[in-house]
Amino acid sequence: MRTAHPKVLGEVLFRPMVLWVADAIQRAGIEHCVAVLGKGHDEVQAILPEHFAHVIQAERKGTGHAVLMAKEYIRSGGFEDVAVLYGDAPFVLSEDIERAYEQHKAQNNAVTVFSARLEDPAGYGRIVRGTNGVRAIVEHKDADEEILQIDEVNAGAYWFNASFLLEFLEEMTASNAQGEYYLTDSVEAAVSKGWRVDAYTASPDTVLGANDRKTLSYLNQLAQKRVVARLLEEGVDIPFPDQVVVGPYVQIGPDTRLLPGTILIGDTVIGADCEIGPNTTIRNSRVGDGCTIVSSQVEDSVVGSKVKIGPMARLRPGCHVGDKVKIGNFVEIKNSNIGEGTSVSHLTYVGDTDTGRWCNFGCGVVTVNYNGSQKYRTTIGDGVFIGCNTNLIAPVTLGDRVYCAAGTTVTDDVPSDALVIGRARQTVKENWNQDGKRFPKGNQS
Amino acid sequence: MRTAHPKVLGEVLFRPMVLWVADAIQRAGIEHCVAVLGKGHDEVQAILPEHFAHVIQAERKGTGHAVLMAKEYIRSGGFEDVAVLYGDAPFVLSEDIERAYEQHKAQNNAVTVFSARLEDPAGYGRIVRGTNGVRAIVEHKDADEEILQIDEVNAGAYWFNASFLLEFLEEMTASNAQGEYYLTDSVEAAVSKGWRVDAYTASPDTVLGANDRKTLSYLNQLAQKRVVARLLEEGVDIPFPDQVVVGPYVQIGPDTRLLPGTILIGDTVIGADCEIGPNTTIRNSRVGDGCTIVSSQVEDSVVGSKVKIGPMARLRPGCHVGDKVKIGNFVEIKNSNIGEGTSVSHLTYVGDTDTGRWCNFGCGVVTVNYNGSQKYRTTIGDGVFIGCNTNLIAPVTLGDRVYCAAGTTVTDDVPSDALVIGRARQTVKENWNQDGKRFPKGNQS
Amino acid sequence: MRTAHPKVLGEVLFRPMVLWVADAIQRAGIEHCVAVLGKGHDEVQAILPEHFAHVIQAERKGTGHAVLMAKEYIRSGGFEDVAVLYGDAPFVLSEDIERAYEQHKAQNNAVTVFSARLEDPAGYGRIVRGTNGVRAIVEHKDADEEILQIDEVNAGAYWFNASFLLEFLEEMTASNAQGEYYLTDSVEAAVSKGWRVDAYTASPDTVLGANDRKTLSYLNQLAQKRVVARLLEEGVDIPFPDQVVVGPYVQIGPDTRLLPGTILIGDTVIGADCEIGPNTTIRNSRVGDGCTIVSSQVEDSVVGSKVKIGPMARLRPGCHVGDKVKIGNFVEIKNSNIGEGTSVSHLTYVGDTDTGRWCNFGCGVVTVNYNGSQKYRTTIGDGVFIGCNTNLIAPVTLGDRVYCAAGTTVTDDVPSDALVIGRARQTVKENWNQDGKRFPKGNQS
Repeated sequence: MRTAHPKVLGEVLFRPMVLWVADAIQRAGIEHCVAVLGKGHDEVQAILPEHFAHVIQAERKGTGHAVLMAKEYIRSGGFEDVAVLYGDAPFVLSEDIERAYEQHKAQNNAVTVFSARLEDPAGYGRIVRGTNGVRAIVEHKDADEEILQIDEVNAGAYWFNASFLLEFLEEMTASNAQGEYYLTDSVEAAVSKGWRVDAYTASPDTVLGANDRKTLSYLNQLAQKRVVARLLEEGVDIPFPDQVVVGPYVQIGPDTRLLPGTILIGDTVIGADCEIGPNTTIRNSRVGDGCTIVSSQVEDSVVGSKVKIGPMARLRPGCHVGDKVKIGNFVEIKNSNIGEGTSVSHLTYVGDTDTGRWCNFGCGVVTVNYNGSQKYRTTIGDGVFIGCNTNLIAPVTLGDRVYCAAGTTVTDDVPSDALVIGRARQTVKENWNQDGKRFPKGNQS
Repeated sequence: MRTAHPKVLGEVLFRPMVLWVADAIQRAGIEHCVAVLGKGHDEVQAILPEHFAHVIQAERKGTGHAVLMAKEYIRSGGFEDVAVLYGDAPFVLSEDIERAYEQHKAQNNAVTVFSARLEDPAGYGRIVRGTNGVRAIVEHKDADEEILQIDEVNAGAYWFNASFLLEFLEEMTASNAQGEYYLTDSVEAAVSKGWRVDAYTASPDTVLGANDRKTLSYLNQLAQKRVVARLLEEGVDIPFPDQVVVGPYVQIGPDTRLLPGTILIGDTVIGADCEIGPNTTIRNSRVGDGCTIVSSQVEDSVVGSKVKIGPMARLRPGCHVGDKVKIGNFVEIKNSNIGEGTSVSHLTYVGDTDTGRWCNFGCGVVTVNYNGSQKYRTTIGDGVFIGCNTNLIAPVTLGDRVYCAAGTTVTDDVPSDALVIGRARQTVKENWNQDGKRFPKGNQS
Repeated sequence: MRTAHPKVLGEVLFRPMVLWVADAIQRAGIEHCVAVLGKGHDEVQAILPEHFAHVIQAERKGTGHAVLMAKEYIRSGGFEDVAVLYGDAPFVLSEDIERAYEQHKAQNNAVTVFSARLEDPAGYGRIVRGTNGVRAIVEHKDADEEILQIDEVNAGAYWFNASFLLEFLEEMTASNAQGEYYLTDSVEAAVSKGWRVDAYTASPDTVLGANDRKTLSYLNQLAQKRVVARLLEEGVDIPFPDQVVVGPYVQIGPDTRLLPGTILIGDTVIGADCEIGPNTTIRNSRVGDGCTIVSSQVEDSVVGSKVKIGPMARLRPGCHVGDKVKIGNFVEIKNSNIGEGTSVSHLTYVGDTDTGRWCNFGCGVVTVNYNGSQKYRTTIGDGVFIGCNTNLIAPVTLGDRVYCAAGTTVTDDVPSDALVIGRARQTVKENWNQDGKRFPKGNQS
């Protein structure tokens, strides 16, 4: 990977791999979790769900050694069964975790290995089945010709009977001269003690992990194709599917179109009949029906229906935008409520502001929310008209139907229905630029 | 499709499929057209060319039933021949419509079926040719081994002798237990009555239609590749062809380069030696030679030669931009004429304005075209210099060579050669911010 | 190509093909170079390194004729050996030029042909090896069955013994009825005179050239894939590798992520742990570690570490941006120094300005650097707070900790610690807009 960070933080569709696994665990209904972390564990802990316990594996001495670190957690928890999953294999399915558990209990197994049937099993440990369950897992390098024919491989996830697992962890010995302990040795240990071992055939994707950037990139592309296929089936119009990126949890209504360069991330829900893109990023936001969001960025915000945003606009976190609002080009909105039907068409900054309905912001309006030491809010009523290149210096309140003349700096509250104006009158000095001497370029015509 | 809209409105390269078909009909010189529409017919009518008649098919009872809806139109029109085309098969070629008609007349056919030879004909109705024309169309499910070998399929378009067609429509009976009427039955009807039927072998693309989003997406990608291949042959430089989208009617001069993220749509013509993109959308516009348009949006406008636009600029509808104009970052122009050589370099809105030649707009200029109830125009002469953060409150006229000082709000007309200024003089309060108490962050240095 | 420009100017990864060749020559340590140029030679000369001599080939009469144009250059230079390379075959490697030269000298060859082994050699001249070196190059059209089996082809680059080459150029005769002279004839000439000829097997890419736009496009994509593969190996995170374009000389630190739509060109160096993109173009710039550059454009600038740029910001040439600076949306910086920790968050133009550390620019600030005839600089101290919608009219100096009130136009220098303010006080006209008559749309609520 050539990374200074833990490998499990490598992202697939903008979500760290370890959280894909944590998500699957959570959806499978598993409540007690412990993460075995190594170098850089603080970074991983910081993003794991709060209820995850963690233990540190200071030395990297194999998968068995990793689970050994969690022995006290397992013992003190009094669990019946324990699932073991890799943090860098993001595509394990919660359905597989659940069904493997059902099989595990029904068969009363010591170990239930997740397996996968692969077209090309080369390199993977083979699942050797016997008359009653799995007999062994044979690593590729140790396999003879017959075993190399087996296309069922160890997918790298397990359910263990907790008693057996604790016993195995006590007794396990190093698997090789390097002093590494392998979890796969548990199969032989169980079989030799007369416990039952079986394999649950999971989705082939379970085996996919990332050990280098190229593979991580491949996982991204694979996940992207799957999300896009799901969206197309759900009625989303994506004329150029290779040019959009949509996170795994994003929901999009039918007849919404995604144009090239669209990136939808996190906990985002888009309504029906919208047009999103090109070149639009939306993160952790809700967007209603019939919206157009062109070449813009929206983050941590809620947008109503029939809203037009962009091109080249930005909603920073904390915006609530009502129906039929128009946010035009070169407009930034931050931590503000924008009432139904209000227009903020161009070159304007609205920050820390509560604006009523059917207002009109001219071009170049600035809500001056920061005085160098504190931030303040601006409050604007309904039907307010705010002229171009004006400053509203917060804290300030404009009543309903206030009319603010272009070029004004508003420092004090303005009552409803009032005109507010504050600018110097123009003065003209005739012939001051005669022959264009002050602007020679202007004489080219 | 999972759509609330008629399927034929699904877009290929930003053009509804039904208009691709209407375009082919028009180019083939067919003047009398009737559209058979179902649910959502209003939406389709709204975009069809005005001269299209339409009839409603309230129930979906097969292709024969659809044509039956148009019987009165056909009868009263007194046509000799009638072409029948599907609205969701966008790639039918006008050349094929014309050539099929020539064959149809030369052979004096009752029916001339458009056929296509496919590498994989599975699923399609096969064309069974006899000694004198076509004997039958056999649906895939009814075909025996011998017929399944036939690679010539029904492409889903027809020329009919009008008399025969009307007779067939009168006499046709339901093709199946569901009470559906199929147009393909016309072949058997014609043959049994001794009329001649033949097939015209059309482009294989004729068969392509979209019944789901995945296929619609495929049609987009196919059309994209064809347009790009045409442009490369015409001398357009497209280093990354998968990352541009160009509509079917767009014309581009040689040596123009299209960078990734470029979308050119509608009735757009771009000159030679331009650089367009990245991330630029141009719609229904003309652009001259030697222009650079970077990360910008241009719509319904005319741009001269050697114009520089962007990055991150926007021309809204109704702009006429002269040669050598510069429209810089964060600039919006709307419904305005910009004279040769004028610069509007940054953070400016020019709307409803007529500007002369070789003017210079400073940063933050706003043409205040809207007073809350009406929009007005701004008129600016040649060689005018407009200072930064100024407002020009329309209606207002600035003569030639006017020099407008930064920070001025211009409310009244200004004669040629004059300086106009209107701003408060600065006042200084010394030591007001001593020790940086008003801006604590500023003390970090 | 359908181009009005010399073909060798066709660009691969934004670099003209002829400069890829010039780069390889330079890295191979060859100091004396002459370019044989045809139509449009001025355009090529303008971009070639200064030390390249050039000669004009007025008529296009073959590769032998082209080298003939350089005869005087070769003779007068007194060189021992001469390499001949094509200007439109950009992928020749400097390593191959060097190793071929070593072989050329070791074998004391008259001609050392660069060869390539191709899976599909069709169309290329075949290298026919004998017992002692190469016997002949046989063009595809002249090859018999046996020779067509040869997969080693003439890659189109050569080392010549200078004496032999000059002799050959004197004596060569037209190769065909069209009066063209081919350099490949030199092989037969050398062999017949008893000189030794051999082939150096170079990278297969050596043969790749571009004769049409489609191939040029292919070369771009090939080069793109190679650069991306190199970056992935170096630890760069590129989740969607097909959607980024990175020039051949760009260096990027580990853990930096490139998002879709990123274009990095020229002499650009990006540090570690950055996030670049989406839709960001960086050209000829240095960026430190831990920076975020979103949907922005950076050109000819130097950016420190932990800098945040964008979305939708632009650094024009000549910027030096200190550590921890924030350049927000719709901000343009040009030819300016921005001190550590300074924020320029929105809708601001900073041009020709030297700004200290830990300053704060409000929204809508303009450094007015141009008065119509000259450009001037603005100087700003440390810890300065500049209010919204202000103009700083250059030349002007603000001391440390100056506090500039919103809406002010600063025309004169301001001493440290002072407040500067210049704006009209607001006036209120009550009931001026009663019933919303001045802004009817505002009554919809």
